Amino acid sequence: MAVTIGILGGGQLARMMAIAGAPLGMRFLVLDGDADACASQVAPLVAARYDDLDALESFAKRVDVVTFDFENVPASTAEFLASRVPVFPNPRSLAVAQDRFAEKTLFRELGFDTPDFATVDTRADLDAALEKIGAPAILKTRRLGYDGKGQFRLRSPADANAAWAALGGSALILESFVPFDREISVIAVRGRDGAFATYALTQNWHENAILSASLAPAPDVAVLEKDAFAFARRLADSLDYVGVFALELFVKQGSLLANEMAPRVHNSGHWTIEGATTSQFENHVRAVAGLPLGSTRARGTSVMLNWVGSLPDSRPLLSEPVAHWHDYGKTPRDGRKVGHATICGEPSEVKSCLSRLARSLDRAAQVGPVVPAL
Amino acid sequence: MAVTIGILGGGQLARMMAIAGAPLGMRFLVLDGDADACASQVAPLVAARYDDLDALESFAKRVDVVTFDFENVPASTAEFLASRVPVFPNPRSLAVAQDRFAEKTLFRELGFDTPDFATVDTRADLDAALEKIGAPAILKTRRLGYDGKGQFRLRSPADANAAWAALGGSALILESFVPFDREISVIAVRGRDGAFATYALTQNWHENAILSASLAPAPDVAVLEKDAFAFARRLADSLDYVGVFALELFVKQGSLLANEMAPRVHNSGHWTIEGATTSQFENHVRAVAGLPLGSTRARGTSVMLNWVGSLPDSRPLLSEPVAHWHDYGKTPRDGRKVGHATICGEPSEVKSCLSRLARSLDRAAQVGPVVPAL
Repeated sequence: MAVTIGILGGGQLARMMAIAGAPLGMRFLVLDGDADACASQVAPLVAARYDDLDALESFAKRVDVVTFDFENVPASTAEFLASRVPVFPNPRSLAVAQDRFAEKTLFRELGFDTPDFATVDTRADLDAALEKIGAPAILKTRRLGYDGKGQFRLRSPADANAAWAALGGSALILESFVPFDREISVIAVRGRDGAFATYALTQNWHENAILSASLAPAPDVAVLEKDAFAFARRLADSLDYVGVFALELFVKQGSLLANEMAPRVHNSGHWTIEGATTSQFENHVRAVAGLPLGSTRARGTSVMLNWVGSLPDSRPLLSEPVAHWHDYGKTPRDGRKVGHATICGEPSEVKSCLSRLARSLDRAAQVGPVVPAL
Repeated sequence: MAVTIGILGGGQLARMMAIAGAPLGMRFLVLDGDADACASQVAPLVAARYDDLDALESFAKRVDVVTFDFENVPASTAEFLASRVPVFPNPRSLAVAQDRFAEKTLFRELGFDTPDFATVDTRADLDAALEKIGAPAILKTRRLGYDGKGQFRLRSPADANAAWAALGGSALILESFVPFDREISVIAVRGRDGAFATYALTQNWHENAILSASLAPAPDVAVLEKDAFAFARRLADSLDYVGVFALELFVKQGSLLANEMAPRVHNSGHWTIEGATTSQFENHVRAVAGLPLGSTRARGTSVMLNWVGSLPDSRPLLSEPVAHWHDYGKTPRDGRKVGHATICGEPSEVKSCLSRLARSLDRAAQVGPVVPAL
């Protein structure tokens, strides 16, 4: 009988998992507080809050395994479910990834460098942390931050009061600000049997702290790749992690610093839908279902452009022979990820397609930084 | 607002259309007599018969355009819907493709050769047709035949009584039996604006009159391609056809004979999911929605293996780096298409993968004929 995968969270990641898993004969059941969450367009959805234990109980009975579209599911929810049905990634992985301090501490324990950091629970802690780390630095909530939310950048110690006024009261972490040369990510997958695979390293560009564009394979990473992949594997093994995860790394003067991990399929891996033999979504559902992992080999060069807030006109893009359109079926809203496009082909094709799209979609600012890297 | 495509028929073709259209932000509504039809796993389904006018009326109100997973929808159903909402392909295309006589007559009118044929409505017609066409020949129902159903092969005129006993009473057609060297198909797509594109020609192998395997691009077709594509275009233009269709052709001593057309996405085009830039399913839904067609360019060499009756063990295939698994979520049943696999890569990779699968899936008979063509 077909496996049914339960997904907590019904956003575009759940949606793309369901689309990727359907050809494998998998069934899906999505749990989300919003009955209209966009994954409901492609899979049945239970509208319930993550703390609704009755709903979780019956959800657990209807699925064979549970995974996540959203990493900030309460630990208690993950544990409640894990006592009833296999949950991948496991609650420990989720807990580590939810807490910037636990995460960076583990990175260092596993021998990988990170920006300097210190916990900040009081106003006095902030001064001590600034003393230790120096400025510029970034004060962040330890938990529940994403896409630049829950962050305050301090240019100098004089900004401490403003930072504290903005974020004080939560459990915080001060991190040294790294003037990195570029950001790359590892998209990796680990199976229930410990099998491990990585996709080509991806280079990322952000705008307003939200991913704007990705390029894979990232250029000039031959010397970095081995370390990055070895660290991803150590991390996954140490957590007995199952599924896809992303590891965001800073490249500074040829060295790598680990910034954070996302315990789920990741925006910087969306290019794998067309750009790799097996997409991150298919490999994630294969992993959590205990199936063999698929090949992560890249097909040519891919550039992913994120659509944030609203979608551009799709027609110019649909007319491009090497471009692929993704509309998540969401209502437009400022700062919301509503879709993306992937341009996949020979580097020269990708480059000329990007030049045309920069004009036809009026996206010169988004495309501009990517072209010189191709 | 997102377009909603209504699909008559909820089998694997509807299912794969919905999976292909979801990334484009399209919504789907499927109408099928069986509430559990496999497309219901990925799209909402209305359980109703094709002659339930109330259901069709409300179905038409909920969709922007109607298309088909099943070409034998009654003409009256197509016309009822077409008076309410755009229907693609149009009812005329459907009517022609539903009737082997009308179809072959049109092929000849358009200047393309076909096997000899004659209509047979009475026992006397059968004798006259045998006189004209000779034996061996195949007696077929003019309507509602697929996968070898509704056919009787006559080795000699002495088989006429048995053939009449099997099929007499329906409107029939006698077709000369063509000892063809191979069968190829054109998968083509025409947009609402008349744009037209073809995929690489596909070579097909059958077992018990059901498609068993396909290879694309078909080998040694350079001299045939131009004629085949030109004919497909003439046919599509003459019908003002919108959407994907398949044209089955026999190759005999280097010449082409048109066997039949399927007014829908087609089993011999399943390889395009992984093997072409834009799949036949995506191009079909783009066409019916009035969007620009996507590139039909092939990615390497693809072999599609059909799973008929039941699925083989998926694990050996999922472990193959160039193989892709498709399980339609259907209950196994003799002669039923329940899934397929596509092996897509460099010819040498495809070849060695096929050799391993022939053993690991115990499918030597299915794989055997394909390998020498690679």
